Amino acid sequence: MTKKKGRVTLPSENNFLYETKELLERWGADAIRDSDGTKLDEDVKDLDAKIYTTYFVARNHNDFIEEHMEEVQQLYLMSQFNTATSSELTIDFMQGYFTEQIKPDYIHDPKEWWEVIDRTTATVVDPKDWEVNQENDTVTIHNAVAFHEYTVSFLVYKIWDPTQMYNHITNNWGDSVAHDIPFDVRQPHSNKFMEDTLREFCENNPKTDVVRFTTFFYHFTLVFNDLAKEKFVDWFGYGASVSPAALIAFEKEKGYRLRPEDIVDQGYYNTAFRVPTKAYLDYVDFISKFVAQEAKKLVDIVHEYGKEAMMFLGDNWIGTEPYGKYFHEIGLDAVVGSVGGGATLRMIADIPHVKYTEGRFLPYFFPDTFYEGNDPTIEAIENWTTARRAIMRNPVDRIGYGGYLSLAYKFPKFVDYIEQVTEEYRTIYDIVKGTKAYTGLKVAILNAWGKLRTWQTHMVAHALPYKQIYSYLGTLEILSGAAVDVEFISFDDVIQEGIPSDIDVIINAGDADTAFSGGEHWKNPALVAAIRQFVYEGGGFVGVGDPSAYQHQGRYFQLADVLGVDKERGFALSTDKYFTQAVETHFITEDINNPNDIDFGESMQNVYALNEKTEIIEYSNGEIHLSAHPYGKGRGIYLAGIPYSAENSRLLMRALYYATGKEADFNTWQSSNINVEVHVYPEKELYALVNNTNERQETTIFDGDQNAQQVTLAANEIRWEKI
Amino acid sequence: MTKKKGRVTLPSENNFLYETKELLERWGADAIRDSDGTKLDEDVKDLDAKIYTTYFVARNHNDFIEEHMEEVQQLYLMSQFNTATSSELTIDFMQGYFTEQIKPDYIHDPKEWWEVIDRTTATVVDPKDWEVNQENDTVTIHNAVAFHEYTVSFLVYKIWDPTQMYNHITNNWGDSVAHDIPFDVRQPHSNKFMEDTLREFCENNPKTDVVRFTTFFYHFTLVFNDLAKEKFVDWFGYGASVSPAALIAFEKEKGYRLRPEDIVDQGYYNTAFRVPTKAYLDYVDFISKFVAQEAKKLVDIVHEYGKEAMMFLGDNWIGTEPYGKYFHEIGLDAVVGSVGGGATLRMIADIPHVKYTEGRFLPYFFPDTFYEGNDPTIEAIENWTTARRAIMRNPVDRIGYGGYLSLAYKFPKFVDYIEQVTEEYRTIYDIVKGTKAYTGLKVAILNAWGKLRTWQTHMVAHALPYKQIYSYLGTLEILSGAAVDVEFISFDDVIQEGIPSDIDVIINAGDADTAFSGGEHWKNPALVAAIRQFVYEGGGFVGVGDPSAYQHQGRYFQLADVLGVDKERGFALSTDKYFTQAVETHFITEDINNPNDIDFGESMQNVYALNEKTEIIEYSNGEIHLSAHPYGKGRGIYLAGIPYSAENSRLLMRALYYATGKEADFNTWQSSNINVEVHVYPEKELYALVNNTNERQETTIFDGDQNAQQVTLAANEIRWEKI
Repeated sequence: MTKKKGRVTLPSENNFLYETKELLERWGADAIRDSDGTKLDEDVKDLDAKIYTTYFVARNHNDFIEEHMEEVQQLYLMSQFNTATSSELTIDFMQGYFTEQIKPDYIHDPKEWWEVIDRTTATVVDPKDWEVNQENDTVTIHNAVAFHEYTVSFLVYKIWDPTQMYNHITNNWGDSVAHDIPFDVRQPHSNKFMEDTLREFCENNPKTDVVRFTTFFYHFTLVFNDLAKEKFVDWFGYGASVSPAALIAFEKEKGYRLRPEDIVDQGYYNTAFRVPTKAYLDYVDFISKFVAQEAKKLVDIVHEYGKEAMMFLGDNWIGTEPYGKYFHEIGLDAVVGSVGGGATLRMIADIPHVKYTEGRFLPYFFPDTFYEGNDPTIEAIENWTTARRAIMRNPVDRIGYGGYLSLAYKFPKFVDYIEQVTEEYRTIYDIVKGTKAYTGLKVAILNAWGKLRTWQTHMVAHALPYKQIYSYLGTLEILSGAAVDVEFISFDDVIQEGIPSDIDVIINAGDADTAFSGGEHWKNPALVAAIRQFVYEGGGFVGVGDPSAYQHQGRYFQLADVLGVDKERGFALSTDKYFTQAVETHFITEDINNPNDIDFGESMQNVYALNEKTEIIEYSNGEIHLSAHPYGKGRGIYLAGIPYSAENSRLLMRALYYATGKEADFNTWQSSNINVEVHVYPEKELYALVNNTNERQETTIFDGDQNAQQVTLAANEIRWEKI
Repeated sequence: MTKKKGRVTLPSENNFLYETKELLERWGADAIRDSDGTKLDEDVKDLDAKIYTTYFVARNHNDFIEEHMEEVQQLYLMSQFNTATSSELTIDFMQGYFTEQIKPDYIHDPKEWWEVIDRTTATVVDPKDWEVNQENDTVTIHNAVAFHEYTVSFLVYKIWDPTQMYNHITNNWGDSVAHDIPFDVRQPHSNKFMEDTLREFCENNPKTDVVRFTTFFYHFTLVFNDLAKEKFVDWFGYGASVSPAALIAFEKEKGYRLRPEDIVDQGYYNTAFRVPTKAYLDYVDFISKFVAQEAKKLVDIVHEYGKEAMMFLGDNWIGTEPYGKYFHEIGLDAVVGSVGGGATLRMIADIPHVKYTEGRFLPYFFPDTFYEGNDPTIEAIENWTTARRAIMRNPVDRIGYGGYLSLAYKFPKFVDYIEQVTEEYRTIYDIVKGTKAYTGLKVAILNAWGKLRTWQTHMVAHALPYKQIYSYLGTLEILSGAAVDVEFISFDDVIQEGIPSDIDVIINAGDADTAFSGGEHWKNPALVAAIRQFVYEGGGFVGVGDPSAYQHQGRYFQLADVLGVDKERGFALSTDKYFTQAVETHFITEDINNPNDIDFGESMQNVYALNEKTEIIEYSNGEIHLSAHPYGKGRGIYLAGIPYSAENSRLLMRALYYATGKEADFNTWQSSNINVEVHVYPEKELYALVNNTNERQETTIFDGDQNAQQVTLAANEIRWEKI
């Protein structure tokens, strides 16, 4: 078999020409990139590969910004809560913040732009009743009410770029590297500077084929504490895009003025878990429109110089959300992002309006993984195997790596493994790209964000593990590599446009009152009626955790009638709960020995059946964790949580089929062994059997006519067969 | 030692004179009672004992009520939830109800007295849009909105007394015993009948010394389902006191009219766990006032005949709540109630405005316990030992038993044990009654009910175990036998009158949004400010479960500043949680080997520390279950739950002392062994060491000056010593 070539990007660095050439050859790479902290030598740039050059639009030019410090990027921050014990209260509002990262904005009048709030009464304190002491960064409130809590919402300048700050502190760059001061391209000098500088860059870098924007203008919200440690991180946070200029422009465009509280949001800062307010959605729209318009200017310049424009999905990506309504206006050629598993792969691969996507795989070539005695291959196998499921559904167009190539080079076993991975990737890509894989169902994930946050639900920082999210993230991770079509829809979509007719099953997953469960949205009659009708007519509804949860009119789960279960919150204890008997066997748990062994993750307490029609599938500790309930021609399924695993993957797939009454179709293109998945490409007349584990697996494969066949697959094997 | 006599009540029955005399002697009893189903022979009535005669005011007279069926008691009930699938919806509103217990009230116009509610929009359907079909007990709604849920709130006549119904069905009385039809003394004939009948009874029962009212007028809410099984039970439920007459009188007295929904309450029927609305509190007040006024008439009659009036705390007790503001007006001589443990004992013993109280101990002499092969002594020891802790604090004035004496008589070991118990009880009583026991602290239990529900928090049916309550009931059970004064205060008390100056520690315990945690009350600035000030000035606040929980202004626990912890509900995930390190040792857990072994019952998830001042005492599974936090001169303590046990008893006591900074006093009158408790009676110059277990215990006892002394106690021993 001839080795394929291409679709792979290598990082490189100074004085590493020979090895770079060797790896370029072995991994079949056709592009080379630099990183934050590494530069490419000229001879590397002359190799037979596209050259990506990292480009910072709004930082890395302190010479410029130090002349225009009034154009530094800003943030709205909230002080700690402070309890008054008398009528006068002085608040050290900077307490807990990192003065190397931020400094108070005393240029704009605090009386106009700041807010002091009595959090006990939820009222704004009259600016006449407080004053700022600029000497020691305090606010003193007169006429405070004793034993009320107060906060100060204040504007700051963000005098250190968070990504550089993180790298700087983590790698102990010390005084040798200046602190990058981010500037705001909404301001006149900065706006002109960004264009001029990019032109200059393009002129001076003829060997750069791809300008890799890292990224555009505003960093996701990342604030450090007074010990130089992370204090607040929100990968989706628009916090760093504010400024008086932006707020004035917002008022002009939207017809009303935002309050600091619209941004500060009680200190929650509108994280993606908050059910977004109209004001905040308007703000996201406003910034996204602006960012698209300004980013387009830069992309146009890049194109003028015959280069490609690639965006890194992260860092200063705020306002560029690829599933948002202005993204296509930017005109990017490509997006590259970091792949943590199947869901993040699909997040990149499914991005519309670009010529190609690229996934940066793990591990990053950094000393935290590449140190003597450690085997980086272990992480690489894990990363590749989980991402591969998703690649089988929709591949990214390129894969790549980041960090110090010289580090990776010291691990020959790792280099061998990546050689194998890149080859396997290209084989998959050539078959799978652009053809429609067989899917048995179309699934909609329903939450407050919908399409905008496609494959991005329940994330805190970018794909980091959290106790409160893994039980829900499982749904995405499972679906990312499953033979289903997936769409993300919002409550507003359902209310305004109804449920798309091609949807088979709707999933609503999350903790109560979060944007992912939905909170007060569930009080909306149009929403619940639409879903009831959808299920009644044969659709499926799968609720995970606190689906449709909102205490209202005698129900906590507003779709309790669909689900056949509700959550006991203490108000219905006086009502006898008769239904506690689990069924002996059930379609959904057919591949599980004992339903009581199912891993529901954080799980849920106090869920009970409303009537005898509820099929209780798992009951323990006096509560239901898995059930099904008929509703017209469709069904409601309840799941207490579903972390990602092979067992749960099968469980959810069965639940989806059962929800919409398509049990008979389940064994079409199916594997009896849950560790093996079947992916089918009818146009290519091919199907693939994929062993997701490091061990040999035996299984019965059912084809498109449900004919059975015994198969044995080697560890991690992917086997292609003709249909 | 001469045997004492008195303070004990025996049940007796037909043809049991000789054995009754024997047990009267052996148990030192001085009163004999009948029961529902047993009658006393004349010769028994002639024994040297007071005779209690059970008296039913509002049932057991079908001859009367069958002539006045329009005076039968009523209930408001809610139909099941029904989803419309088109514009017409017919609701079988009686579905799930027991037609032998209730029948729809078609005498009063349904269009005036019923309500059809669109539960999806929370709106009342115009009576023009629905009609009742009396033939088949249905309501048909026209102009329904498809896929909205509808309920019917309807009036019924309650044609079978729930207690008699329960006994009837449980004991298979079949056709031999008629169904007691309860009548409403608010109605003219019934009101006259109750007085006349009582007079007649007093005339005809000269040997009755004590009229044991079982009880007065309205039964707690107890509704059966169509399979003759319990459907809804609320020991505090005022549901069975409604009628058009009552609602009209209410309007006259309170100046506004109640809706059916004020009673039906979305199907929750205002259980004690619901934060009571003003309308419901008004209704409780209205009924209580009426009940007191009518009950007084009966008590006066009893007194006229030189007899005593005793009330059974249960069954038809609605409106007579002993800690309510009208109870004293009734003029009762005594209250008798069933003792399930320490808290229920104190519920009876602490009742004000009566000459004496009586506790009916367990087991009840019924065949479910007294059957061949079972040892009823086991339950008796358990019951006595748990209740004894509370008796040491405040004894009931009498103890007694119920059921069939002939059954108990067949168990000689049981008879022996009760002989010993009655003797021990009298010894305790003679010392403890009327003297002030030493207490180290005064504790207030804070919830929406306050004093009205003294020792009655978190109860569903009367003292039955529930998964959702045991983690909170522990607080009461612990305090019932502890050397603390206890007071029950409501949020309104705090808001209107402030916190009594003698309170050392406030406890707020319960699941979020229940009446015991407080729900929306916590949005009240006056409430939170008062508690903050109280703690700031040296008081303690102990929060159990979801204390002060209400999502508002960036906090879930509104007293998070006092507690130093809050609950992560998903909105603050972006904020780093630095504080996860538990302290090595702590005053509160000094008697516990490993804090991770503490039984927090149902426990709580996702509680985290707000700052470095929070003393994390137990941390596991990524969350805090026990912590302390300084606040001014006082402290806030967080506990995830505290079921009753000796370990948790000690834990809570230490938490209380720590909360108010009185650690130095903890070893005043203390036992090192948690299974032994010390009760001190300074006026009597006596103290008692009580072994709460069935095993021998060694311990170090600390006296009033904290001098230590080694002591060994036999199983269950109570030892009296001079101070």
